[in-house]
Parts: sequence; structure tokens; C-alpha cells
Amino acid sequence: MSGNTHQQAEKMAEQLQQKVQVGEEGKHVLKTPKGTRDYNPKQMAIREKVFNVIVGSFKRHGAETIDTPVFELKETLMGKYGEDSKLIYDLKDQGGELLSLRYDLTVPFARYLAMNKISNIKRYHIAKVYRRDNPAMTRGRYREFYQCDFDIAGQYDPMIPDAECLKIVHEILSALDIGDFRIKVNDRRILDGMFAVCGVPDDKFRTVCSSVDKMDKMPWEDVKKEIIEKGLPEKVAAQIGEYVTLKAGGMELAERLLADAKLSKSEASCAGLTDIKLLFTYLQIFKVTYKLVFDLSLARGLDYYTGVIYEAVLTGTGTGAAGGEGEPVGVGSVAGGGRYDGLVGMFDAKGRNVPCVGVSIGIERIFSIMEQKAEASGERVRTTETQVLIASAQKNLLEERLRLATTLWDAGVKAEVVYKRDPKLLSQLQYCEDSGVPLVAILGEQELSSGTVKLRNVATRQEVEVSRSDLVAEVKKMS
Amino acid sequence: MSGNTHQQAEKMAEQLQQKVQVGEEGKHVLKTPKGTRDYNPKQMAIREKVFNVIVGSFKRHGAETIDTPVFELKETLMGKYGEDSKLIYDLKDQGGELLSLRYDLTVPFARYLAMNKISNIKRYHIAKVYRRDNPAMTRGRYREFYQCDFDIAGQYDPMIPDAECLKIVHEILSALDIGDFRIKVNDRRILDGMFAVCGVPDDKFRTVCSSVDKMDKMPWEDVKKEIIEKGLPEKVAAQIGEYVTLKAGGMELAERLLADAKLSKSEASCAGLTDIKLLFTYLQIFKVTYKLVFDLSLARGLDYYTGVIYEAVLTGTGTGAAGGEGEPVGVGSVAGGGRYDGLVGMFDAKGRNVPCVGVSIGIERIFSIMEQKAEASGERVRTTETQVLIASAQKNLLEERLRLATTLWDAGVKAEVVYKRDPKLLSQLQYCEDSGVPLVAILGEQELSSGTVKLRNVATRQEVEVSRSDLVAEVKKMS
Repeated sequence: MSGNTHQQAEKMAEQLQQKVQVGEEGKHVLKTPKGTRDYNPKQMAIREKVFNVIVGSFKRHGAETIDTPVFELKETLMGKYGEDSKLIYDLKDQGGELLSLRYDLTVPFARYLAMNKISNIKRYHIAKVYRRDNPAMTRGRYREFYQCDFDIAGQYDPMIPDAECLKIVHEILSALDIGDFRIKVNDRRILDGMFAVCGVPDDKFRTVCSSVDKMDKMPWEDVKKEIIEKGLPEKVAAQIGEYVTLKAGGMELAERLLADAKLSKSEASCAGLTDIKLLFTYLQIFKVTYKLVFDLSLARGLDYYTGVIYEAVLTGTGTGAAGGEGEPVGVGSVAGGGRYDGLVGMFDAKGRNVPCVGVSIGIERIFSIMEQKAEASGERVRTTETQVLIASAQKNLLEERLRLATTLWDAGVKAEVVYKRDPKLLSQLQYCEDSGVPLVAILGEQELSSGTVKLRNVATRQEVEVSRSDLVAEVKKMS
Repeated sequence: MSGNTHQQAEKMAEQLQQKVQVGEEGKHVLKTPKGTRDYNPKQMAIREKVFNVIVGSFKRHGAETIDTPVFELKETLMGKYGEDSKLIYDLKDQGGELLSLRYDLTVPFARYLAMNKISNIKRYHIAKVYRRDNPAMTRGRYREFYQCDFDIAGQYDPMIPDAECLKIVHEILSALDIGDFRIKVNDRRILDGMFAVCGVPDDKFRTVCSSVDKMDKMPWEDVKKEIIEKGLPEKVAAQIGEYVTLKAGGMELAERLLADAKLSKSEASCAGLTDIKLLFTYLQIFKVTYKLVFDLSLARGLDYYTGVIYEAVLTGTGTGAAGGEGEPVGVGSVAGGGRYDGLVGMFDAKGRNVPCVGVSIGIERIFSIMEQKAEASGERVRTTETQVLIASAQKNLLEERLRLATTLWDAGVKAEVVYKRDPKLLSQLQYCEDSGVPLVAILGEQELSSGTVKLRNVATRQEVEVSRSDLVAEVKKMS
């Protein structure tokens, strides 16, 4: 019977295969798309751990959660990302609406607020986003990657929500234990004012901003060259350089710049600098200023920021990466965000704005580090939660094993049976060793006749005889 | 200062907006793409509840979890879905690989197994899949929807993993409490044998299968017409009708068909019927046969099934939907799956197969039902987990509130402050009422000087005076 069955199944499988091999030319390429990855069970276990830390922090600060579709109308994303728009994935026009994969979670959030006329909410959103960028997968840069976003929308008093976002970044990066970090802070208004006093024309602000944003990846001289190539006089570029190469500092730097002869003439810069001072006041109360620096070279690429911006970088100390004396090296950004007071208004028919500030945790790089750590430690990661395997010591006990499993499952116990009619006891025990199942409930003729089960601790090899009616309680107690 | 700041922010927001309105013609269309939806916080709370039930069951049966990218190489999906392939979303060719959004989680799973040369695994995967189908959103049919898949891959003895999949469907649908259900079972080999003895040529098996699959949505007469339109003689269609209109049954129907003069001549049918009998034996042990029916009209549309197939339908009793005497009405399928022994081999260069069986829970329909239930019950769903709000009774206490919040956050307490410099106590209490925060810690000049906090239960309005050093412990105790 069973032989017959299998022959039939194999025959059908073959037919199906031939059909495809005829239907297609050449062999299948067995891979995931460029810049993407699968997560195997061990990687998923790490991912779950990271998510728990992050969601724990978001919930500690009172956030709700929402979800949005993986794609949006193409026009929803248009005009929001500046030069980065070229990295958006479009869907093929198969009739109907033109669609694009989401590029971040912020623009969909703003669309959601405008569409539902929500004027205040504190929400988190964890989901994958898509960018046709050059992948660098060993460093955790992918084309499909998770973002964990926390945002506060609403008309509130200055810098209170902004400071809480930074408190959250600090909480999460501390809890994840992935080495030392710094959080750089700046303000778009300071940058805009600075560009203005340096003589950058209004319509070049954003593109110069994009160039300055590269200062964590290339030296100022190269950034300067790029700015000049974008059509700005050497003198203007040099003046920008005087500011953006200033050593990063804290509240005292903001005070110094407020007294700067040129910069103090810009209303925008003064507003930004005043807010930076207020921000640092709150961050002192939150006990996180020792990780924060006010850095004039921080620009952030995205178009939609209107106020405070920030970015957290790992300094490479304590993570095994190279890096001298705690100075930030190019390990890269693991979180970023800022204030975007104009984005919701871009979606509202009447232009009504909802001020927003938020932060996005870029966890792929964090995963990479944690995977490497797990690998290096050689620690075994369990990928299932099975409490007990129901095993048999003799032949012809499959139905008894299934009966016992039913009792355990129905009582909420996590239990498994090996899917063989007559497996050897040794191979059943081996299965437990391999997958980390801590207990085995062994059935034999003797146990069946006495209404008992042998309960064995896989690690210690100790066995106890348990009455079948006590098994559920016993397993729950021992695991 | 603050006025200045705000003016600047508003100015920048306006500029940003003008830029976009100039850049684009006409107004934004404020919607999600056709057939998709956002999840608001209340819907997310329901979604989380459903996921917990489902994941709980998957873990109870020892499953690990994996994840795969949202898109695959187009060729990975080609030739796997038969007539349904036209519903696949393709990405635009922007240079590089040709990509498509995943249509289900089964084909990516098979690709994963072949790519990593995995010969046995028990895994679940919860993720969104994409189909360019006609949406019917009120009935929970979307173009972007979640699938919750559980699959067992490996060479095992017949029907043991298959039976466990059905046990899991039973567990989940029972636990979700969404009304009565039936699980229909059939076998592709029985259908193929039946088609053969009825005179359907081999190359028409799959297309006739697709037609028979529609019998839950249209009467046999219409299905018959479709089969004839596909080029089959009326006589052949009529013969098929004799079988697929047979009243569904249990093990006794399998026995009757094994004795059927025509059907017993088909080796494929006999193999399938024998396995159905064995399946029912195991399902009896699992105590779930009272929800199961062996139904010859169940066909399932997808190409890749090779053995047992099944589908769970809500019968509409107990969910408020119309339906007489517990008979299945068109409320529709909420879970489905089957055996697909040939799929992994389609990806392996040497055609090596890994036998697989699995089930997919279609939770959108379940969400719809649960949302309607929540709506109807008028029960309040909390969307945050905040334990306590730090409030102030007088002006100028923002910094004190932030200081106290820091203490609570750092101790792991879920706490919020209102983001206003000087909020009214009443509006702070109102916030708690609205969002279901159970406790308020109130600070005033008096409390500050005595080193205490007033801890108020929002529901009972009872207040206790607590020393600041005891607050964390007190809040943890009371929530």
C-alpha cells in the first residue's frame, strides 16, 4: 500500500518537473534577488530578540502601532526624497494604478495621517522598505531591509517629543549591547541659515545638503569638490567648510554659534540653535547627553526634514571593528530621524499641516553585528520551543505516541513526535540532542500496561516514571 | 524664542509644499492602492491577537520560522501556479534582474529548501503575499494579504505529517472562536485517476481541475459548461459530474470508492483513497474527524499539489452570516493546503525532491470577522500598554515631570508625559480616560517638597500618597 502510494507520488512529481523543464529553457538560477536575503531559523531567533528590545522601548513610551501596504501609488512617493528618488522600485504597469514599493515608512505615515485626518498620534511601525541602492551585504546594507520607526505627530511645545525620540534611541542602542555609540544632532534650519549666510542660492540648499551629508563617508576636500561641481563658487564652498568642519560639541557650541557674527544674522539659524539648546536641556534630564554631539556636518539626505535631525553611529569600540580612542569610524549609521513639519501638509488638500518628529532604527546592521557575535561565541541558539518529544522504545507504537501527543497538545504543551512508523529510540534521542528539546516522554509495552510514561531529562539523562494523568503537570513543572 | 522657532518651521514647511505643488499638476489622490488597506491601531491589536493564537499553535507543534524577500526572480515563480500566473505582480524593468512579488509562501519555501539543500525542516512563515485578483474587501479578499504557513518537509511515513497539519488547522480555528467550520479533504491522485477513468486526456487534467475547483462558488451545471468549453465531450463532463457531485463523507466514502468498478481500475485513485483512509485513522486519534469531510469536489487551483489537499471553510453558523442547518455556505475558505512532493525538485539542478506538506491560514477573512465582532460588541480595545501618566497639578513643572518619567522609564515602567509645557490637570486626566491609561502620578509643589507623588487610579479615582523612592514598585504592583 505505502509502496504503491509513494510510486504514484513520485510519478506525479516527475511529470510536473518534466512539464516545467520543457516549458522553460536552461536551468533555474537558484538565488534571491540582488541585495536581498533569506532569514534562516537561527537568524530569525536573533531578529526576534532585537525586535523585542525595540518594541519594548517603543511601548514603554506609550506608542501604538499601525501598518501600511508594501506599495503606494507612485505619486504618493514622488517629490519627497530629493535626489534619492531614483532609487525607488516601481511596479510594472500591468493596467490600473501606477505603483511603487515604499522607500521608507515616514512618507506612508504622513499619507496615513492626512488620509484619516489624524492630528495627533504616537505610533511605531516595523516593516521592510525598498531601495535600489548598491548593496553591501556584509556590512548590512540591503535593497530590502527593515526599518523600525517611532514617530510623534501633533502640535506640542518645542523639543519635548524630539528629546523623547533621542531618549528612545539611547535606550535601544544601550539595551542591544552592540558596542559604544554616539548620537549626532543638528537642525535643518541651522544648515539652511548657514548656507544662506555663506551665499548659497535658495534653490541649491537641498543639493548642497546632500553633498554635506556625505561627510561621514568622505573627507571635506572631496565634498567641497562636489559642491563646486554643482555650480557653486569656490569661495562659497570654503565658507561652508569653515562651519561644517567645526569640531562637534554640545550646548556650548550652540551658544558659541549664536554669538557668531555671520550666523547670528540668520533668523533660521538662530531659531535652530535656540532649539538645540532647549533640546540639550531636556536630554540632560533624560541622562543621555554623554552620548550626544551637536555636529554641524550632519545633514541627512532626505528632502522632508524641517527642523532637528539626528543620526546614531556605532563608534566601533567594543564591537571588534577598528577605531581609535572611541572616535566614530565608518561603521555607519544605525538610527536616524528628525522633524518633518511639512510632510503631512503635502498630502492634505487644504495644506493643513501636522508637525511630526520621529526616528528610524536601521536594524540590518544591528542584525549583522549580533549574528557575528553569536557566531563568534559559538553559543547554541534554540530555534524551536518544543518542551517534550513523545518517543517509543518498541515497534508498533505510532498510534500510542500520537494519542499521547494529542493529550499534551490539547493541554497546551509544546510536543513533537518523529514522523516515522517505527523509529529507533536512539534516533529519537538524537533528534532531541540536535534540536535542543529538553525532555523525552518514552512509551514502551511496560509503560502502556502500567499507565505510565518514562520522562527523561535529555541533558542529565535522568529518568522518572510518571503516571499518564500526571504527565502534563510534570512536563510543565520541568520546563 | 518659541514663537520665532515656530515661524521658521512653518515657513520651511510652506516652501516645501509650494515646491511640490509646483512640481506636480493637480491634487494628490489620497488613497492606498486598489485592493490594499492600512491597519489602524485597533486593527493592529486584533491582528496581534490572531497572530498570537496562530504562532502559539505552530510553536506547540515544534515549528521553527524563516523569512524570505517580498520579491523573487521572475523565473522562480514561473510555471508554478498554472492559470493563476496571470495574477502575479511584476516589477518594472529598471535594469538588472526581472522580479515579481511573491504570490504565496510555498514557492519561496521550496526555492529556499533547494538553494540551501535542506532535506527536512518544520517551519512556519507569516508574511504578506500579492495577487492582482479582483478584490472584495468587505469579505476580506485583498490584493495584499497575509498568509500564515506551516509546512513539514522531509521523507517520512505516509500521512503522519499530513494529519498534523489538519490537527493544527483544527486547533487554530477552534481557538479563534469565529464560528463553526468544516475541513474538506481530497487527494490530487484521486482526482487525476477520476479524470483518467472519465476519459479526460492527460494534458487537460490541470485545467479541468481548475474548473472543478470553482464548485464552491458556482453550481455544477456551470462548471460542467466550462469544462465543455475547454474542449471536452459532454459525456466526459457528465461522468466527472457523477463523482464530484457525490455527497461528501468520511472514511466510509473512501471505502465505497475503492470498490467502485471504474475508479478502482486507476492506480492513482486507489493510492489516494488508501491514504485518505489512513489519514482519517490518524485524525480519529487527534480527535478532529467531527469537523472533517472527504469531498470529491475539492480540487484547489494551484498546480503544484501532488497528494492530499484540504481546505477549511466557515459554515456561517455562529458568526451572524446566513446559512441553514450548519451546511457550508459561501462564507469562504479560511485555510488551505496539501502535499506538494514535486516542487522542491523543480528548483534542484539534479531534480532531487523533498516531499512536503503544509497548510496556509488565510487570516484576512478572519480579521474581518473579528473586527466586525469587536465593533458589534462595543468593547473597548486598548492600543497602548502605558501603565502610568506623569502629570502635574501646577505650572512650571515640565522638567520635574520629565525627571520622574526618566526614573520610571529607566526602571522599565511604561510611562508617558503630555508634551505640553503647562498642561491643565483636567486635560491630563482626560488623556488617560481616552487612551485607557490606568494610573496617574501627580506632581505638585507640595509633593515636590515632601518627596512624594500622588498616585491616582483613573477608574476608581482613589488616590494614595507614595514616596518617590517607592513609586516604581507601587506602579508595578498596581498594574
